[in-house]
Amino acid sequence: MSQEILKNINDPSDLRKLKKEDLIQLAKELRRFIIDIVATKEGHLGASLGVVELTIALHYIFNTPDDLLVWDVGHQAYGHKILTGRRDVFDTNRQLNGISGFPKRDESIYDTFGTGHSSTSISAALGMAIASNLKGETQKQHIAVIGDASIASGMAFEGLNHAGVTKANLMVILNDNAIGIDPSVGALKEYLTKARVGYKPARDNIIEALNFRYFGPVDGHDLEGLLKVLSEMKAIKGPKFLHVITKKGKGLKKAEEDQVKYHAPGKFEPDTGELLKYDTEGLPLKYQDVFGLTLVELAKNNEKIIGITPAMPTGSSLKFMMDAFPERAFDVGIAEQHAVTLSAGMATQGFIVYCAIYSTFLQRAYDQLIHDVALQDLPVIFCLDRAGLVGEDGATHHGVFDIAYSRAIPNLIIAAPRNEMELRNLLFTVQQDLEHPMIIRYPRGRGVLKEWRIPFKKVKIGTGVCLKEGTDLAVLSIGNMAANVEEAIKSSPDNSKIAHYDMRFVKPLDEELLNEIFSKFSKIISVEDGVKNGGFGSAILEYAAKLRYKGDIEILGIPDEFIEQGSLDELQEISKINVEGIRQKLKSMI
Amino acid sequence: MSQEILKNINDPSDLRKLKKEDLIQLAKELRRFIIDIVATKEGHLGASLGVVELTIALHYIFNTPDDLLVWDVGHQAYGHKILTGRRDVFDTNRQLNGISGFPKRDESIYDTFGTGHSSTSISAALGMAIASNLKGETQKQHIAVIGDASIASGMAFEGLNHAGVTKANLMVILNDNAIGIDPSVGALKEYLTKARVGYKPARDNIIEALNFRYFGPVDGHDLEGLLKVLSEMKAIKGPKFLHVITKKGKGLKKAEEDQVKYHAPGKFEPDTGELLKYDTEGLPLKYQDVFGLTLVELAKNNEKIIGITPAMPTGSSLKFMMDAFPERAFDVGIAEQHAVTLSAGMATQGFIVYCAIYSTFLQRAYDQLIHDVALQDLPVIFCLDRAGLVGEDGATHHGVFDIAYSRAIPNLIIAAPRNEMELRNLLFTVQQDLEHPMIIRYPRGRGVLKEWRIPFKKVKIGTGVCLKEGTDLAVLSIGNMAANVEEAIKSSPDNSKIAHYDMRFVKPLDEELLNEIFSKFSKIISVEDGVKNGGFGSAILEYAAKLRYKGDIEILGIPDEFIEQGSLDELQEISKINVEGIRQKLKSMI
Repeated sequence: MSQEILKNINDPSDLRKLKKEDLIQLAKELRRFIIDIVATKEGHLGASLGVVELTIALHYIFNTPDDLLVWDVGHQAYGHKILTGRRDVFDTNRQLNGISGFPKRDESIYDTFGTGHSSTSISAALGMAIASNLKGETQKQHIAVIGDASIASGMAFEGLNHAGVTKANLMVILNDNAIGIDPSVGALKEYLTKARVGYKPARDNIIEALNFRYFGPVDGHDLEGLLKVLSEMKAIKGPKFLHVITKKGKGLKKAEEDQVKYHAPGKFEPDTGELLKYDTEGLPLKYQDVFGLTLVELAKNNEKIIGITPAMPTGSSLKFMMDAFPERAFDVGIAEQHAVTLSAGMATQGFIVYCAIYSTFLQRAYDQLIHDVALQDLPVIFCLDRAGLVGEDGATHHGVFDIAYSRAIPNLIIAAPRNEMELRNLLFTVQQDLEHPMIIRYPRGRGVLKEWRIPFKKVKIGTGVCLKEGTDLAVLSIGNMAANVEEAIKSSPDNSKIAHYDMRFVKPLDEELLNEIFSKFSKIISVEDGVKNGGFGSAILEYAAKLRYKGDIEILGIPDEFIEQGSLDELQEISKINVEGIRQKLKSMI
Repeated sequence: MSQEILKNINDPSDLRKLKKEDLIQLAKELRRFIIDIVATKEGHLGASLGVVELTIALHYIFNTPDDLLVWDVGHQAYGHKILTGRRDVFDTNRQLNGISGFPKRDESIYDTFGTGHSSTSISAALGMAIASNLKGETQKQHIAVIGDASIASGMAFEGLNHAGVTKANLMVILNDNAIGIDPSVGALKEYLTKARVGYKPARDNIIEALNFRYFGPVDGHDLEGLLKVLSEMKAIKGPKFLHVITKKGKGLKKAEEDQVKYHAPGKFEPDTGELLKYDTEGLPLKYQDVFGLTLVELAKNNEKIIGITPAMPTGSSLKFMMDAFPERAFDVGIAEQHAVTLSAGMATQGFIVYCAIYSTFLQRAYDQLIHDVALQDLPVIFCLDRAGLVGEDGATHHGVFDIAYSRAIPNLIIAAPRNEMELRNLLFTVQQDLEHPMIIRYPRGRGVLKEWRIPFKKVKIGTGVCLKEGTDLAVLSIGNMAANVEEAIKSSPDNSKIAHYDMRFVKPLDEELLNEIFSKFSKIISVEDGVKNGGFGSAILEYAAKLRYKGDIEILGIPDEFIEQGSLDELQEISKINVEGIRQKLKSMI
């Protein structure tokens, strides 16, 4: 398709020069542009397709960037990026040194607030709106576009609850497509569904009860209708709310039909939406699947096992358990705080709860981890997926803080398996007689083994293992860093001098093993895929200081800066925890 | 007053043997018992007085501990403790080795879930209720008693939103007294206030919209009415909600009249409620007041300054700014996540936001700190009150994790003033040209200086100072630990050998000063009132390892365990960071 109109839109002021009649054509071109590029470059598809008309309407009616627009989560902001000066670099989306897959303040004046994690937009836009009032800019509008899955998260409620007692020019647009990454859940979702029926507001309107003026529901693919209601609302001051009904994946049949798969489909054929086939035969399984499948195996023989996920049944593969034991597996929606304390509540009644949550999202339930789980020493098991660098999702999603933030918490056990077998055995070990809460962290993506479904074997809590003997220098790795270390050692000229230990547990540290290491080696390197500040290496240093160890200890890990998007290899290279980075360090130390 | 009835209540089964007619007398005795003990032993008063009738009614109608009762926050659980076997030890409330001021699982089978932080009760009780259904115990009831300030917090909404799509026997009791510690705020509160008028449900019922059966509002001091509605509700399965109207401080006139002051009034005359006068003449000011008063001073000359607190205007002394500049100071209610992201939103518009929050409560906005503030490098200033050990509030409230959890975050500056002057100067320094987000942490209680309102002086970010020269050993302290260190050195026989540095900044570390210290001393002690795992001392170790420093470094700080309640002196002693603990360490090192 030619881009007759889109090619001339270099920023929203160009857009605002168009006649209304041209916008439908622009919507077609924009949708096609997104499809064509995501088809080959990959990325998030469905969400942006669903808001093409809304995106155009917002930039057409409002005077961006003076009026301030915040996209919650930001999966849906591709159209926004393309219309705000990033059309010609959009093919660098999610790549190293390219544009981010999420809104980002550094990148454009139109990206008023960086997102990635959900449910922040109302608070951010309200802050801007209050600021504008203080500056006397009382005409400005401040718009938060938020999905129905995100608005059900507690933080969004906090924002609404505050906004309702202000005179801020805040406009909340609910992009209601009944799905987040997986289908939305919860009582609010059921309530919204009722409101959708017949496109008229429900009798009991929660939003009006919170002092918002409520508009809608309107059809989010009817450009004319959107323009009309937005023009009307533009003139209204104070907090207001527009309920827009959209279809995720709109305009690509296959994406509309399988909205979960087409959230981020990988490469596909742009005309038909047909997914490109990858030959995964013989590749190791993803860690998430090892988790999901193993949990089902265990749950078959242990009726005390429960699985909980906050809105990531597909991403965490808890869906396997939801299918096999629906009464014992729960998707609680984007509600990490609730997920953790719910787990604690169940644990008080003797259940063995596996709470599957991405490392970066456990940040959202840090207090619950401390206050509701660890302080009460309840044996909840946190299965932390996407721990370490995650690649293309970038800075908002890297799971690099968990070792540091969890190591500070008493009672907590922290383990990181180096391969699928270890993960499996850890999951097996903790289902019986676990006396403390525990974190098991594992990375995004595939494992390293072909055979992983071996008979279970218990892991002794707090023990590391020697993977390779050596004479001069000991490398201590945690989790999947073992693979890089192994390869780096193998290809080092002095490899016989280098020992390799997989410590397996960040906490408790295997002090016996460390005593042995300290007595044998005067040079130590620790390797982790988490931040160096306060992380695994730091734990080694603390113990070494206690013992007055006088050897050299070098810490490899994520430096004290936010790591942007890129391939995993590229980002490991930047952080110097790739094979080559480790090899260089070995060379300089030996 | 004699305790004819109360003296025979050793657990709720005794209570359930009473005739209904006796319960009013029991309520009188229980109220008096609470007043008498809190009058002399101190503690939280108003909340428990407000739920005397509700507490009796709950234990009378429900079969505790088989039916499970969770008290949100727990300030209001004194009556519950007294009726569940802790009458005779209640005078040890909040003391070292005494009973906790909050519900605590270790303490009693009737304390089904430990609380202290707000808004966790619905999630916890729902977890228990789902667990009971799985066990086939479908008759059991699970009750969360939550205040109107706490239910407005996002986490509570997450719990309600999930509960509404379950068949769990969850009963949420809203204890609506229109006040938390300070008066409640927000749109939901306004909504509830409407519902109170005439004691009939509002037309648009938010709670019913979330699939709860709604009962009330009922008068929470009408025992007969409470018994009636609770009996009725007991027979109903699934999620249900009772709206109870109570008066905080009920039964003690002065406490009813000044609910904020009588939340935790200190010692008072039990008959009249008259507060005991303390002679504070000549005592140093509280740190919180130095913060609050200084902020007003600065805000007078800098119209960009904003103050935000999540529900702690009195506790943080932000109320001074709320009085002086009401349009620039905001109490957003118990909504830490929102408070932090709202601050970020305002910062994007050029405002200088001082977000006043207790150290222990910033745990609730950890992700917002990382994702919305630090990642975008927005210069929000977090004034972390109650950092370090807090004394009698105990394990749920100690602010001992913040150094460790914040040190992992890139871009963030972390400072801790050693006295009021330093706090004042830091607050002054950051109001101009601050380029990064910053934490200023300071302790609960009074400072150490008599004169604090001295002319402002800028502090150079990332610089420490030498407080005392020495020859053999260097003590590196952070924040208010300087005072203990100073005294410990003074009273050490070898005091001329001991140098003392106040590092002032945990991050960035003053590397220049550290280079000097490392080159001069072969023995170093670090002292902090935060956890040792990953804390300030750990930062020193990391830098030392980088430089291959071979001296001895000893870390003093909070050990890897939860510290219970007690006086500050007692708890510092347990943690070996009191004067004597430091002196012993000096002795052993020198």
